[in-house]
Amino acid sequence: MRPVCVLMGNELFDDIDPDAYEVGTAIELFHNFSLIHDDIMDKAPLRRGMETVHSKYGDATALLAGDVMLVAAYDHINRIKPIHLQRIISLFNKTAKEVCEGQQLDMDFEKKDLVSFEEYERMITLKTSVLLAASLQMGAILGGAGGGNQQHLYEFGKKLGIAFQVQDDYLDAFGDPEKFGKQPGGDIIVNKKTFLMIHAMDVASASQQQMLGELMKAVPTEETGKANKVNKVLQIFRDCKVDQWAEELKDKYYKEAMMHLDEIAVLSSRKAELEVLAKYLLQRDK
Amino acid sequence: MRPVCVLMGNELFDDIDPDAYEVGTAIELFHNFSLIHDDIMDKAPLRRGMETVHSKYGDATALLAGDVMLVAAYDHINRIKPIHLQRIISLFNKTAKEVCEGQQLDMDFEKKDLVSFEEYERMITLKTSVLLAASLQMGAILGGAGGGNQQHLYEFGKKLGIAFQVQDDYLDAFGDPEKFGKQPGGDIIVNKKTFLMIHAMDVASASQQQMLGELMKAVPTEETGKANKVNKVLQIFRDCKVDQWAEELKDKYYKEAMMHLDEIAVLSSRKAELEVLAKYLLQRDK
Repeated sequence: MRPVCVLMGNELFDDIDPDAYEVGTAIELFHNFSLIHDDIMDKAPLRRGMETVHSKYGDATALLAGDVMLVAAYDHINRIKPIHLQRIISLFNKTAKEVCEGQQLDMDFEKKDLVSFEEYERMITLKTSVLLAASLQMGAILGGAGGGNQQHLYEFGKKLGIAFQVQDDYLDAFGDPEKFGKQPGGDIIVNKKTFLMIHAMDVASASQQQMLGELMKAVPTEETGKANKVNKVLQIFRDCKVDQWAEELKDKYYKEAMMHLDEIAVLSSRKAELEVLAKYLLQRDK
Repeated sequence: MRPVCVLMGNELFDDIDPDAYEVGTAIELFHNFSLIHDDIMDKAPLRRGMETVHSKYGDATALLAGDVMLVAAYDHINRIKPIHLQRIISLFNKTAKEVCEGQQLDMDFEKKDLVSFEEYERMITLKTSVLLAASLQMGAILGGAGGGNQQHLYEFGKKLGIAFQVQDDYLDAFGDPEKFGKQPGGDIIVNKKTFLMIHAMDVASASQQQMLGELMKAVPTEETGKANKVNKVLQIFRDCKVDQWAEELKDKYYKEAMMHLDEIAVLSSRKAELEVLAKYLLQRDK
């Protein structure tokens, strides 16, 4: 999806520059580098239904493979025309550091009892949204966009990324197992502080808060225990109207994204594909 | 030392270009990134007499800190004049990948019973020499050197780096504890396949080979056991004239380095400082 965003950011302003393929490749290499290193840190056994690199080849080799992939990303960037090189590297570096900071915050939050909405939003922005936003902006740079247009496109991507994360958190709790392809409640079982859980802790009554606290202390290993925990937490979520709140929150970010897209000074017809992308990502019919 | 090599490579051809400070900083950040990641992989508790980053802050944070330092290295490179940017990044990337490959080979060799001289030389070249060589060449690029001169300077640095490693291996076995600052035999105790050990296995008689093999199976934990092992291995080294061989080998690489320095087409007086550096690194009086 990220390389496609580079191409779409480019096409918003001009015909596709062959450099966009190099930048798209660099972004995808960077993204996969970050997944390999994240999986080491999170000791994750699976990724995309397959064994993770560190599970298969050991931590050391996964670490080095990630390092080399990051360098390889710069190899691709280094092939673009000199006129754009410094600006692309500058945005790439800023984004890369933000993604690493997001991963560090994510790990820090696992050890914290309480995470605020603002803290979680910032972490998610850094860990996932800025790369989407930067992919679009890099395309815009290659397409010759001015600074103002670049910034609006960046903000469009950033808001879209946050909306997507709200939806991801929502679907993990309330998604239809048939459509979603997995049993809901994965985040609840591992006590992940999602948008939903953070909001529930914010608005719950004293007794609901206590119940949530107790549920989050439990670490059931059997399937019945897990299902039981998920059902109880979901009931509190529903009682607190967290599901409705999440839909509204996603909508808020979606609308902010669309406002920024509106502000970009190009023919509306050029924006149609990005609108389709946003609706597709957020599974919206209207 | 590596940033100094960037400056010296630059000064061999011209007055110092302020960009050399950026490249030198990038090289030093890269070097320290590689040390932090190596220390994670090697589970090393100490570096420069201090706690390693992963011991102090945990593996995950050390991994991320390393990643960000690598990105920060590119930040510094990105500040140099556009005219040199692509060539410097290209050499930097090639070198970075080689250093990672060297580390992977080093880990592979730990699991192998037999490592050939050529394999070890290649690993050491990748893991340590190419960064020294590239530092000098990057300076030369900034100084406006032609391709031939750049290549000779690179080879000078590469050979010098290997000579330095031979000396390092030699001193670990035969160094004067007073001058060297630590008890000799560290490599022998951990069964490291150094230039010396590899050559000893090559030239030893059948009975000496058997004895070395048995000594390398032993993992003494007490001080007397360790000292005993070190003394026995050193005796075989001396019986096989490994010490003399190592001195000659170091000399061979030193002379090759000097031949490449000779070939560089600049006034001899400009080369004086690099000769001093080489002699200083290899502790030579003549």
